[in-house]
Amino acid sequence: MTVALASTHSPASTRTAEPVSPIQATEIRHPARVELGKKLFFDPRLSRSGFISCNSCHNLSMGGSDNLKTSIGHKWQMGPINSPTVLNSSLNVAQFWDGRAKSLAEQAGGPIANPKEMAFTHDLAIDMLRSIPQYIEEFRAVFGTEQFTITEVTEAIAAFEETLVTPNARFDKWLEGDDDAISAQELNGYQLFRNSGCVACHHGPNLGGTSFQKMGIVEPYTTDNPEEGRIAVTGEDADRFNFKVPTLRNVELTYPYFHDGAADTLSQAVDIMGRIQLGRKFTPQENTDIVAFLKTLTGDQPQVILPILPPSSDMTPRPAPFE
Amino acid sequence: MTVALASTHSPASTRTAEPVSPIQATEIRHPARVELGKKLFFDPRLSRSGFISCNSCHNLSMGGSDNLKTSIGHKWQMGPINSPTVLNSSLNVAQFWDGRAKSLAEQAGGPIANPKEMAFTHDLAIDMLRSIPQYIEEFRAVFGTEQFTITEVTEAIAAFEETLVTPNARFDKWLEGDDDAISAQELNGYQLFRNSGCVACHHGPNLGGTSFQKMGIVEPYTTDNPEEGRIAVTGEDADRFNFKVPTLRNVELTYPYFHDGAADTLSQAVDIMGRIQLGRKFTPQENTDIVAFLKTLTGDQPQVILPILPPSSDMTPRPAPFE
Repeated sequence: MTVALASTHSPASTRTAEPVSPIQATEIRHPARVELGKKLFFDPRLSRSGFISCNSCHNLSMGGSDNLKTSIGHKWQMGPINSPTVLNSSLNVAQFWDGRAKSLAEQAGGPIANPKEMAFTHDLAIDMLRSIPQYIEEFRAVFGTEQFTITEVTEAIAAFEETLVTPNARFDKWLEGDDDAISAQELNGYQLFRNSGCVACHHGPNLGGTSFQKMGIVEPYTTDNPEEGRIAVTGEDADRFNFKVPTLRNVELTYPYFHDGAADTLSQAVDIMGRIQLGRKFTPQENTDIVAFLKTLTGDQPQVILPILPPSSDMTPRPAPFE
Repeated sequence: MTVALASTHSPASTRTAEPVSPIQATEIRHPARVELGKKLFFDPRLSRSGFISCNSCHNLSMGGSDNLKTSIGHKWQMGPINSPTVLNSSLNVAQFWDGRAKSLAEQAGGPIANPKEMAFTHDLAIDMLRSIPQYIEEFRAVFGTEQFTITEVTEAIAAFEETLVTPNARFDKWLEGDDDAISAQELNGYQLFRNSGCVACHHGPNLGGTSFQKMGIVEPYTTDNPEEGRIAVTGEDADRFNFKVPTLRNVELTYPYFHDGAADTLSQAVDIMGRIQLGRKFTPQENTDIVAFLKTLTGDQPQVILPILPPSSDMTPRPAPFE
């Protein structure tokens, strides 16, 4: 079967028995809302400094991440945790490593007001946006009101983020029946991945994102990072060191790995995961094959035309990054 | 005459006697070089932190500037001077406020190695790029060598920057003969601008960028900013406080104004320029009209599809932003 035929998504050829399923491109139902959300996603005026935007740490040139162990926040503060990719994040059961946000919209409000991240307040963000005639007009057109609040702001950002899916990974083509989409080595890597137990957590369309699991099931995970994961949300001692299972989609692009960003390479990540989660030491050849498989999960990256931001008006409060 | 007719650039209808001339869209002669340059322009791995790219301070969502008084550099250092727009910068006689770089390529190497800006070194930047197979392949395709140096890096960035022109401003349409392209108020503002002496410095296709002029000709300019301008290049005392005349293209988008970013609004900038450069106090109505004219200089912003950056390899040195 050719790639062209596979891309028609013929149900007859789909490998439905696999624990991983393809993802589909999203249909954009509200283009004006998405466009507004894109502007907000790229607008550093949502930060106190006027320098940090959503895209700073979820950089759409870099797999929706910043490729740093932990992010750089207001006044160069060191972030507490590795910045998860925004790509395909709509497929996650919840947002943040500890799942403390139930939705993309709820997540989007977090960093704006976090004093270690964008260090703004929701009120100041709204004051800023309401001082800009073009933003007022766009909110009116999209939400029917000029009296918008942080709710509309985060809903628009979420609408943009929902479009950030990455279909057509080579592995998806294989799932859809195209035997030639992946090599024998990559197929072997997938079979190792599936049969070793990786899929227990990394399954479904996002190969993860659907559950919280303990970091260090077989062996304890050693790290200097003080984050304790889901216990911060539930207060349950059993949730200590439980983190949301990250997606493996585009994992080639989202280094470094783990909540502390401690693994610089896929090879390191596979080795550590095998040992501490599965009690299995992969051979160098097995490791290489699994890594080769993981690189088949890189999908079409969103084609984003950089938004042109509405200019500040004379009334717009100016950022003061050094105060 | 209709706008559609005006856009055919009929020479017969061009107002050739004006001291300002339209700018034209560039023809892209080397698309692969431009694409490579675009990736480099957006790549924060050219900074020590892995966080700051050319686009951080010359943000193409924000008129090719950062809309801050002075820029934020490595470890949040306060930059010494306002970040000039990269838009139409190929039309400038030289680069930087003091003109110390003769070309865009020479300019591009500066911030990468400036310890207050991207804080990297050219050698480390090359080591980084040569560790990434896709970059090696692109440099080979564009420059015919895998042994590229900072010269090829900055030439590629310059090739991208040369495409960042903003044609089709309403004022250009008027210059091309479309009487309806600007309002009576905007035309009055232009006539004030022309007849008051602003065009002595702000002329040509870029309304500036072609000469160095003293900041404070009639009255001294008072500022806390210690920069002294062109004297740093020439050593000539006569060049103290001489700065490159900034372009007024897209000036609506490139606030705040002046080398120290001290003027937040166009109204303030027009008022100060009138007093200290021309010895003229514009009335509120004159000021309003000139500002209205200046806003007709906003052209088509470059439509930039965000590049997808080649991922680091296992060999790529990792940035250490907090060390």
